[in-house]
Amino acid sequence: MHEFQLIKKYLLKLSNNNKSSLNLNDDVFFDKSKHLVVSVDTYVQGIHFIDFKKPDLVIKKIIRSSISDLICKGVRPKYYFISGSGDSKSFSSSNLKKIMKSLKQEQNKYNISLSGGDTVMSNKLSFTITSIGFSKKIIFRNNAKLRDDIYVTGNLGDSFVGLKVLKKKINISKSLEKYFINKYYLPNLHLEFAKKLISFANASIDLSDGLISDLDKLINKQKLSYKLFLNNIPVSNNLNKLLITKKLNKMFFISQGDDYQILFTANPSKSRIINKTAKSLGIKISKIGIICSHSQKSQIIDTKGKKIAPKHKGYYHQF
Amino acid sequence: MHEFQLIKKYLLKLSNNNKSSLNLNDDVFFDKSKHLVVSVDTYVQGIHFIDFKKPDLVIKKIIRSSISDLICKGVRPKYYFISGSGDSKSFSSSNLKKIMKSLKQEQNKYNISLSGGDTVMSNKLSFTITSIGFSKKIIFRNNAKLRDDIYVTGNLGDSFVGLKVLKKKINISKSLEKYFINKYYLPNLHLEFAKKLISFANASIDLSDGLISDLDKLINKQKLSYKLFLNNIPVSNNLNKLLITKKLNKMFFISQGDDYQILFTANPSKSRIINKTAKSLGIKISKIGIICSHSQKSQIIDTKGKKIAPKHKGYYHQF
Repeated sequence: MHEFQLIKKYLLKLSNNNKSSLNLNDDVFFDKSKHLVVSVDTYVQGIHFIDFKKPDLVIKKIIRSSISDLICKGVRPKYYFISGSGDSKSFSSSNLKKIMKSLKQEQNKYNISLSGGDTVMSNKLSFTITSIGFSKKIIFRNNAKLRDDIYVTGNLGDSFVGLKVLKKKINISKSLEKYFINKYYLPNLHLEFAKKLISFANASIDLSDGLISDLDKLINKQKLSYKLFLNNIPVSNNLNKLLITKKLNKMFFISQGDDYQILFTANPSKSRIINKTAKSLGIKISKIGIICSHSQKSQIIDTKGKKIAPKHKGYYHQF
Repeated sequence: MHEFQLIKKYLLKLSNNNKSSLNLNDDVFFDKSKHLVVSVDTYVQGIHFIDFKKPDLVIKKIIRSSISDLICKGVRPKYYFISGSGDSKSFSSSNLKKIMKSLKQEQNKYNISLSGGDTVMSNKLSFTITSIGFSKKIIFRNNAKLRDDIYVTGNLGDSFVGLKVLKKKINISKSLEKYFINKYYLPNLHLEFAKKLISFANASIDLSDGLISDLDKLINKQKLSYKLFLNNIPVSNNLNKLLITKKLNKMFFISQGDDYQILFTANPSKSRIINKTAKSLGIKISKIGIICSHSQKSQIIDTKGKKIAPKHKGYYHQF
C-alpha cells in the first residue's frame, strides 16, 4: 500500500477532532493560534538514501529534505531534532565527527538550531527529523485557483541522474558524475525566495515524490486539472546534453522526484512581481503550465506540440 | 558508549548557540518565548519493547513514555506525531487497526491529538514519537535545593517484574503475571497532579532509566548529594509479597526503570500542600529521601538501617 494511502486510510480518521490539522493532507502541521509549523519525516537507508558511505552528505540531504517541507510553505525553519537508529559502525566516532561537522554547516547555512537528539541501537540505519518553525500563515495545498500559473524553482531531474550514477546504472564522464551526485545529495533550497512566496502563491509543495505526483497532491481533491508545457520544464545544461546525446525521455527524467524544488501556483497578475523577486534573489523560476477546469483532463504538451497524458512516475514507499 | 554520553559529547556542542536549549541536558526542549515544549524519542523493538505480539499495548506504552517526558515537567501534552518504520507484517491491516484503536483510546485518555504520521518500510521495527505541549514555565533538572525533600509518585519496580515475566525469567501465578505485564505496558501517568506540581517542585524527571540513574541525572552537575530511605521507596503489595517470598533484593528491583513515575524535589515547607494535592487527586506520593550537601557522599539507608552506596542499575542503550 502506498505510504500516503496508508496514512490517509488509518491516520486521517484520528486527526479529525484536531481543528488545526490540515497537516495529514499537507507536508506540515500548522497550529494557527500558536503560529507553530512542524514537519516530521523518517529517512531509511535503502529507501531515502542508498548507503552511508558518505555520512556527511547523507546528513545534509536529510536535513534539507526535512526543512524543505517548511520552506516550500513559506516558513523559515528554526529548530530541528534528529533521532538516529543504527549500529556501532554507522555511529562510529569517525562517522559521528563527520555528521556533527555537516550539521554545523547546515545550521550556519539555514540558521537552524539543534534542539534535541536521540541515538538508539538498531541493525537498520534510519533517521527521523523533526523540523519546527513559526509563522502566522503558511501556503497550503488544495488552494490553487482556476487559471493560476504553475511555477517551479531551479532545475528538475539532476538528482535522479545522481542516483543512477550512484547505482552505477548510467555511464557518463567523471566530472559529470560528480556534478549529478552533488545534486542528489545537496538540493539547493530557496529560503529567501520562500519567505517572499507567501505573499503571492496560492498553493505550494516541494518536489520530493516527482513533478506529476506532487502536482496531483497539490491539487488533491480540488475540482481542477492542469496543462504543462514540457518545453518550459527547466533542466540543467548538463541534463539537457545528456537527454540529447543519450536520446533519453525528458518527461521520465523530470518526474522522478528528490528535486526539493518548490512547485507553486499564483494568479497571472503576480507574474511581474514573481519574476522581479526571482531576479533580485538570483533564483531561477520557470512558468511551466496553467491550472485548468475540471471539465478537461490534465495534459502535458510535449516538445513536439503533442498532447500526452500525465503518468505518476514518482517514488512511492510501498508496503 | 552510553546513549546520553554520546549525545552529550557530540550533540551538546551544536546546541550551544541555542539559548532556549536547556533541552539536551533535559528530557524536553523548551522555548520560553514561544511557550513551546517538545520531546522526541525513538523506540526500537528489542530495546524499548521486547516484541510486537501485542501492538495495541506496545503503542500505548510508547505514547505514554513520550508524553511522560512533558507531564513530569508539569506540561500538558497537546499534539503528537508518530513515525513508524517496519515491515508489512508489523503494519498488516489487522495490526494497523489495533494500533489505531489504541491511539484513539490514548487520545481520549490524555486529551492529545495526532498531528502527523509517517510510515516507511524497514526490516527493523521502530517508532519515533514527537510530543508537543505549551507552557509558560516548566520544571527543570539541575534545580534541586539543599535540604529539599525527594518524592516519587506511585510504585516502583512492577514494570521490571512485568518484563521478567514476558522474558520468562520469573515464575509466578497467572494472575500475578497478568498484573505485572499490565504494569509493564501501561504506566499510569499523573497528568492532573503534574499540572499542580509546577507550583511546588524545584526539579523533576520521569523514571525511565531507573531511580538511581534518574536521580543522578536530576542533580546532574549540581554540587549536591542525596540520602534515600529504602523503607520509604514505594512498591505495590504484589511486588512486596514477591520480594519477601522469593527473597529478592528490593534495591535492585526498584532501580531498573521503565516505571514512568515522577521523581521530584521540593522545599520541606511544601510538604502539606503536596500531601493535600495527592490526596485530593487520589495519587500515591512518597517522600523517599532528602537532598544533602556535596560534602557527604550520596547514600541509601537500607531496611536494616545500614548505609549502602547507590549503584546505577538502570538501563543504558549501549553502542
